[in-house]
Amino acid sequence: MIKLELDRKKRSLFVKEPSDVSSLQNGFYGQMKRGIIHLTPEEALYVMDIRNGRCYDEAGNEHRFNEVASLFLRNRKLLARYLTYKDYRDKGLIPRPVAEAEGNYGRTVLKRYASSDFKLDSFSFDGLFFPNDLLTLVDDETVGKELYERYWIGQFGTYKAAHRGRLSKYDIYETIFLLKHGSLHLKNVKLADVEKAAHKRIKFFSDMYLVYEDWRRRGYVIKTGFKFGTHFRIYFPGASPVRSEEEWMHSKHVIHVFPRKNKLIISEWARAIRVAHSVKKTFILAIPGKKSPIKVNLKKPRLDFLLYHRKSGGIETPKDGSPKYLMYSLTEDEYIGGEGLAEALAECKHFGLEMLMAISDRESSVTYYVIKEIELPGSEYEYYEIEWVQP
Amino acid sequence: MIKLELDRKKRSLFVKEPSDVSSLQNGFYGQMKRGIIHLTPEEALYVMDIRNGRCYDEAGNEHRFNEVASLFLRNRKLLARYLTYKDYRDKGLIPRPVAEAEGNYGRTVLKRYASSDFKLDSFSFDGLFFPNDLLTLVDDETVGKELYERYWIGQFGTYKAAHRGRLSKYDIYETIFLLKHGSLHLKNVKLADVEKAAHKRIKFFSDMYLVYEDWRRRGYVIKTGFKFGTHFRIYFPGASPVRSEEEWMHSKHVIHVFPRKNKLIISEWARAIRVAHSVKKTFILAIPGKKSPIKVNLKKPRLDFLLYHRKSGGIETPKDGSPKYLMYSLTEDEYIGGEGLAEALAECKHFGLEMLMAISDRESSVTYYVIKEIELPGSEYEYYEIEWVQP
Repeated sequence: MIKLELDRKKRSLFVKEPSDVSSLQNGFYGQMKRGIIHLTPEEALYVMDIRNGRCYDEAGNEHRFNEVASLFLRNRKLLARYLTYKDYRDKGLIPRPVAEAEGNYGRTVLKRYASSDFKLDSFSFDGLFFPNDLLTLVDDETVGKELYERYWIGQFGTYKAAHRGRLSKYDIYETIFLLKHGSLHLKNVKLADVEKAAHKRIKFFSDMYLVYEDWRRRGYVIKTGFKFGTHFRIYFPGASPVRSEEEWMHSKHVIHVFPRKNKLIISEWARAIRVAHSVKKTFILAIPGKKSPIKVNLKKPRLDFLLYHRKSGGIETPKDGSPKYLMYSLTEDEYIGGEGLAEALAECKHFGLEMLMAISDRESSVTYYVIKEIELPGSEYEYYEIEWVQP
Repeated sequence: MIKLELDRKKRSLFVKEPSDVSSLQNGFYGQMKRGIIHLTPEEALYVMDIRNGRCYDEAGNEHRFNEVASLFLRNRKLLARYLTYKDYRDKGLIPRPVAEAEGNYGRTVLKRYASSDFKLDSFSFDGLFFPNDLLTLVDDETVGKELYERYWIGQFGTYKAAHRGRLSKYDIYETIFLLKHGSLHLKNVKLADVEKAAHKRIKFFSDMYLVYEDWRRRGYVIKTGFKFGTHFRIYFPGASPVRSEEEWMHSKHVIHVFPRKNKLIISEWARAIRVAHSVKKTFILAIPGKKSPIKVNLKKPRLDFLLYHRKSGGIETPKDGSPKYLMYSLTEDEYIGGEGLAEALAECKHFGLEMLMAISDRESSVTYYVIKEIELPGSEYEYYEIEWVQP
């Protein structure tokens, strides 16, 4: 039994008994001040829940778990923090208060992506735009075939059977891209009409198109990600639909666009990552629009815990190691916004740590994702690889 | 070459040459009237695109594919219909106009689900509700353990390690269910406050709760489907978390709630089905609220094609077989509403046919889902199994 003491007025929790103090010190709980260990709410609740802690106030009255928890009910996402703290602890790993982070730990791994110049030769051709279906059809066989084979723009003939039929189909992104850069003329509507139809149907269409154009202009092929449950899939520069035997014909990366102004419930957000994972694709999160300047308010951190991880043959500790991640604690029924996520990621970058997103579901089972920054030369937007991990 | 003739005034397309007529008749295209075959826009476009058809008007001028298509630009989802028609045809199967459907073909397969009475013994216990996390904690070990082991309500101890800790966690659905049926008392808030917090956070919360309660009351265990990208997962009556060696401990069905008033873009809708498929779960679509009376307007069908399918050793045809499905043609950037889907399904039921949902993505690749009705005895809501198929 560990004896916790509660100062109800100050809402502070601490441990004084020498044997308890040394036990908690060995486990890296709390902060030591003059022989007394002061605990955060998460730490105190964990000790009560799992380490057989019992809590007493000044008058010697015992306080059960919920009585202690109710003192902190107004804390921002108390249970999200507690349950993710607990899960990380349960794995034998050490989470510490985020306020302890200082300097730059140099743990960030920047993923460098290839980039090449993209030049579209000038064509001049006619198409018919179908506003109800957001597709353009072109019945010019020569141009359609060349655009398809040289640039993999559009779908010539039949999907996975290009020899079948001579029509080309262009999706809404390709249509706008060709109107802007490739001399496509539409017989029935103008660029503004196409954009209007797109905006009417697709939420945050501008953001979607910015991402499409950004990757195209770096030499990537970018097509629908429908089959993989995401907005786009990409192929690295040099990919072509006519060299189907080559290994790089298979897309290995999918892109999900997360507009700064969008807010998504975590369960929907995680669903997109899950599909990508289940089909063994690398999930890329795109936050279009100019990168926000790093605004790190160390007094009001967005992130929740400073995490020590493993090293060969053991674990890292505050005593003889350095932290690896910052934890972003969430529950499945919470919302996350593009702007907020970008700011949290800037916080991680400031400390040279990667973000470990920890999502506690309704059953208190925790799922983890690591978020790594991508460097796409020439791009002004933010891209991140998100990977499901078991820490 | 097949010669198509176009009457521009009437916007009608037909074939007169005897050899063309017999070729199209053998392939089950169009409608024969006095030696002339009249084609629908989809049929005419298919013949031009794939069967080397060439189209001429009264004056002998040739009309290319897009010129013919532009005559029907105002048709509801012309390309969605054309591309799904084409894909089905490309598989060697026969789609016919939906107006030809008549009577009841008796092809519907009703999936019968078990149902048992659920009785919750009366308990009286206290909990603390965390409005920011939509979770309730109960630190009464006896009651928490019993509710968990007998009914699998809540999570006692730690997820997948119930012996670790003595707290119980109840999600928002369990919390409300226990407040209504199980004598839970919350120390800090009332039922109305819990519902208010839930409505504020979760869209269509009432619909979600109706589905939760419906399955619980039929004896099912219903828990979060977060790991499978859906709203809920279920276990059949009799399932328990403490008999972990038994086969039926693994959930095999997930539920996605589709409120009548909700509208979802097809790509998001399909994403949920894809996750379920990738983890080998049966996907159940729930449309809560009372079943709508069947309103079938045969003059304005919601569905797109009457589909003949395969039989052993060949295909079914209008000549010597009967149709199997009604096709609902969609594109990935279209919206679908709960109410509209329910009406379309009622139309299928009217004809005793199953729905084959065909979704053409931005690349004109078509994905198919079969939708089968579920019979859940005692329930007033609509449930459907949705299965990804290659017809």
